[in-house]
Amino acid sequence: MTQVQGAVPGPGGTARTRVRRLPEKAVHDVAVRDAVLDAGLVAHAAVVDAQGQPYVVPVAYARDGDRLLLHGSTGSRLFRTLAAGAPTCVTVTLLDGLVLARSAFESSMRYRGVMVLGRCTALEDDEKSAALDVLTDHLLPGRRADVRPASRKELAATTVLALPLDEWSAKVSEGWPDDADEDLTHERWGSVWAGVVPMTTAYGAPQADAATPPGTPVPDYVEGWARR
Amino acid sequence: MTQVQGAVPGPGGTARTRVRRLPEKAVHDVAVRDAVLDAGLVAHAAVVDAQGQPYVVPVAYARDGDRLLLHGSTGSRLFRTLAAGAPTCVTVTLLDGLVLARSAFESSMRYRGVMVLGRCTALEDDEKSAALDVLTDHLLPGRRADVRPASRKELAATTVLALPLDEWSAKVSEGWPDDADEDLTHERWGSVWAGVVPMTTAYGAPQADAATPPGTPVPDYVEGWARR
Repeated sequence: MTQVQGAVPGPGGTARTRVRRLPEKAVHDVAVRDAVLDAGLVAHAAVVDAQGQPYVVPVAYARDGDRLLLHGSTGSRLFRTLAAGAPTCVTVTLLDGLVLARSAFESSMRYRGVMVLGRCTALEDDEKSAALDVLTDHLLPGRRADVRPASRKELAATTVLALPLDEWSAKVSEGWPDDADEDLTHERWGSVWAGVVPMTTAYGAPQADAATPPGTPVPDYVEGWARR
Repeated sequence: MTQVQGAVPGPGGTARTRVRRLPEKAVHDVAVRDAVLDAGLVAHAAVVDAQGQPYVVPVAYARDGDRLLLHGSTGSRLFRTLAAGAPTCVTVTLLDGLVLARSAFESSMRYRGVMVLGRCTALEDDEKSAALDVLTDHLLPGRRADVRPASRKELAATTVLALPLDEWSAKVSEGWPDDADEDLTHERWGSVWAGVVPMTTAYGAPQADAATPPGTPVPDYVEGWARR
């Protein structure tokens, strides 16, 4: 994935999602958008109360084609508000590294991010069950055959929302330090180590719970997550 | 750090920050709040436009005692809006693991999170410079002696904001699968592997940029980040 310089207007763009800061990092490629969304597990979603106070809440999500799926409790204020069609913003951010420049000002981070604006729709019946399967397959790939599907009561206690990917922006920062010539040639700052320290999400050794029958092997799909 | 059951009202709590969903995961311990904030690098901050549309934007931050510090470009819409005193919510989420239960419904995540509500104040002059040092020390510990401090021009191009930790909530979910007895004893679901797959942020091998003088060693503080 490369940073698109002087990106052209593309799908999903509106005046509200135009990337104003560091527009050279804006990406209008749907494949990049989808790669970012597919690599993340948790988004941050916002709702606004009657007094104009925003609330930002982490939510597990999955992409299903041209929409995001979110699920939560019917008792959640966030999900009740979103299900009622309140305007929201759902942002996914992946932190890929620290960029150590020769000045504090130029030091930065490598990241990929997608911001989606819109209003959610609550899914019901077969659509709701199918969406929960998509969520399980994204969050815990391979796991679905090993878990009991939701009961009627559990389904009733769960709100499943779809947010269309109609209005969105994506930003990718994958660069290197961009120091000024006078810092690069400076006696002191020009001699320091500068570069990138990559960051990734790592999976630790799976830990069986006390009720797992002794000798039950860790499923292959779990072992595979370390490589996803 | 343990999950607090039936947490009592504590510092920072208001009706707006009372944890309604899974209140048993609410934590009112300032030390837990600070540990979460000190372990994160990127928060998600929201602002609301005149039409009531929220925007959620990732921001690097640092905790400085009983306030959060944020920095960004004076040209950023987010930072201009925040500097003007708009109500905001800044949320930090750390994902600690996947919880694989025997049902889809009980499957969940381990996480730690802090949500802060309030209004920011823009810092100026000496306070601004000192806050930038706190940010560098949090984001790139040990690095400050190796980077050129911000010039007058760079300072003028940077907005530094303080958000008091007056109104906040913290939530910690560190549990194990909590399956119903009928799933634990079920012929099929009772025999599956269930447990936790821990997740952490890992640092990869530091990569020097092309302008770093050959032979310059990776600084000790960078090597130490892998252990932070």
